[in-house]
Amino acid sequence: MTDHILGIDGGGTSCRAAVARPDGIILGRGKSGAANILTDPNNAIISITEAAKAAFRDAGLDEAGVGGASAFLGLAGTNVGDLTRYVRDRLPFRHTDIDSDGLIALQGAIGDGEGAVAILGTGAIYMARKAGAIRYIGGWGFTVSDLGGGARLGHALLQEALLAHDGVHPRSGVTDAVLEEFKGDPRGIVEFARLSKPGDFGRFAPLLFDHAGRGDPQAVALVRAGATAVNESLDAIMAFAGAPRLCLLGGLAAIYPPWLSEQHRANLVEAEADALTGAVALAAKGHAERRGAAA
Amino acid sequence: MTDHILGIDGGGTSCRAAVARPDGIILGRGKSGAANILTDPNNAIISITEAAKAAFRDAGLDEAGVGGASAFLGLAGTNVGDLTRYVRDRLPFRHTDIDSDGLIALQGAIGDGEGAVAILGTGAIYMARKAGAIRYIGGWGFTVSDLGGGARLGHALLQEALLAHDGVHPRSGVTDAVLEEFKGDPRGIVEFARLSKPGDFGRFAPLLFDHAGRGDPQAVALVRAGATAVNESLDAIMAFAGAPRLCLLGGLAAIYPPWLSEQHRANLVEAEADALTGAVALAAKGHAERRGAAA
Repeated sequence: MTDHILGIDGGGTSCRAAVARPDGIILGRGKSGAANILTDPNNAIISITEAAKAAFRDAGLDEAGVGGASAFLGLAGTNVGDLTRYVRDRLPFRHTDIDSDGLIALQGAIGDGEGAVAILGTGAIYMARKAGAIRYIGGWGFTVSDLGGGARLGHALLQEALLAHDGVHPRSGVTDAVLEEFKGDPRGIVEFARLSKPGDFGRFAPLLFDHAGRGDPQAVALVRAGATAVNESLDAIMAFAGAPRLCLLGGLAAIYPPWLSEQHRANLVEAEADALTGAVALAAKGHAERRGAAA
Repeated sequence: MTDHILGIDGGGTSCRAAVARPDGIILGRGKSGAANILTDPNNAIISITEAAKAAFRDAGLDEAGVGGASAFLGLAGTNVGDLTRYVRDRLPFRHTDIDSDGLIALQGAIGDGEGAVAILGTGAIYMARKAGAIRYIGGWGFTVSDLGGGARLGHALLQEALLAHDGVHPRSGVTDAVLEEFKGDPRGIVEFARLSKPGDFGRFAPLLFDHAGRGDPQAVALVRAGATAVNESLDAIMAFAGAPRLCLLGGLAAIYPPWLSEQHRANLVEAEADALTGAVALAAKGHAERRGAAA
C-alpha cells in the first residue's frame, strides 16, 4: 500500500485539496464546493471528500486511495460549536486531523518559523507562533468581533450613511454614493442590513477604501477607525510572536498597509506559500510523527 | 350615537388603549398583548382591538361602541416596511389614524408646544417639533442605528469582553463580570450574540452603567462613546426644535443625564404626560378637525 497525504483547505465558498507524497511533494490538486462545518456539516463532509478524490484523479491515482490517506484539514468555524468531531468521524480518510483555517494559513505563510499572520478579509483573525506555541486573537465573527474586517467596515459605512441622511454627521461623497445605491431611501439600508450576512456587508468595503484613498473625510474616518482596531490587535499578537515577521492575508491584505502603523508596516513580509500548502506541510508532519511513534 | 375617541399606544410587548370624550377627557383604559405590526400584523390587529374593547368596558360602555370611535394609534415599526395600510384596513374603528409610537410620545411629553424628545431605551430615537413640523432622527434599529441605546451599549460591552479576553484591550471589573457570566468561555459570548435580539443585548446596559458609575475605566469608555453618539443626535435634533426644551423618555432616561453634555442637560424638562395621553390628544384633534370640515 502506498502512503499518501492530503492537505485540505475548507471554507465557506469552496474546498481545495492537494494529495502529496509523505515528504510533502504535491502530486495533484482538486476543488469542490463550500465546506462550512458550522452552517452545513453534512455538505462539508461531501465537499471535503469530493475535493480529495479530485486531487487523487488529478495526480493520476485511483480515487479509492483516499481511504488510505492521512489528511490534515484546516476548516473555518472550528473555534465555535462542537461539530469538529462529528465531521471527523464521517470522513473516509485513514487518519484525519482537523484544525482551524487560520493554522494552515499560518503554516503556509511563515512555515515552521516564528512570526505572525493577520487574515484581513470579511473577518479579521490574528495568529502567531513562538517556540512552537500558537496564539489566536479575534476571529470571533462579524457580530461581536473582527473589527476592521471587511464586514465591519461595510457595516460602519451603512451606519454612517444613515447618520448623514439624518443630519447627525456630515454628508460626503461616500455617504452620498451609498444613499444613491438605495435610491435615497434610508429604509432600503435598514432592510438590506436586516437580511444581510457578513459577506454582504463586506462588499461595501472596497467602495469605502476607494473613497478613503481619494481623501473623502467620512471614508478616511471610518477606515482609520478600522485600522486602529487592526493595529491594536497587531500590537497584541506581535507582542507574543517569536519574531518580528508579520504576513497579511485575505482580501484586504493588499489594501490595508498604508493605513497601518509604521511599526507594523516595518515587519511586513510576503507569505512563503498558501494555506493549502500549509495544510500539506502539517499533514506531512503528522504522518511522519505517527510513523516515528509506530517504528 | 355618542362620539367617542380612542388613543392607542402599541408596542412590542403590550398595547394600551384609552377611550375618551371628544374633548379628550379619558373615561377608561384597557391593555392587551403585543402589537408589533412588523413582526406579526395579524396579531397586532387582534391586540389593538382587544385593548380598545377593554377600555370601553372599563368606562362602563358597550364594547360594540368601538365601531363608532375615532382612533389615533401610535405604533412601533411604522417607519419600516409598508404594513400600516394593511393594519388600518382591518381595524374595526369608524376612523383610524396610524402614526409612529414616537409621535404620540412627543405629543404626550411636550403637548402642542415646541421642543424635542429622545427615547433612550433598547433603541434610540429623537423627535422635535417646530412651527407644527415634526422631524425624526435615528430609530432605524439595532443593526445599523440607535447608537447609545441599550442594545448597542450591551453589544459594545460583549465585544469589549472578547477584546479583553484576547488581551487586545485591558481587562477590568466589567469585562471580568461579563466573562464570568459566560463561565470564562468566549465561545459562550459568540453563541449568545448569534441567537440574541436587541432586547437581549440591552439587558447588559444596566450592568455597564453600574460599573461606569463606580469608575470602571472600560465601562466609562463605553458609556462615554454611547453618550457621544447621543449628544451628536441631540445636537442635530435640538438645532431643529422650535424651543430649547428636551424631554428624555425610555428605560435609560433616568440614567443618562450625568453622561450628556452640559448644554443638553440645561434643556431637560419633565414629560407633561405619557404616550397614551398623547395618542388621546391626537385622536381628539383629528376628530375635531373632521367635525369642523364636515360642518
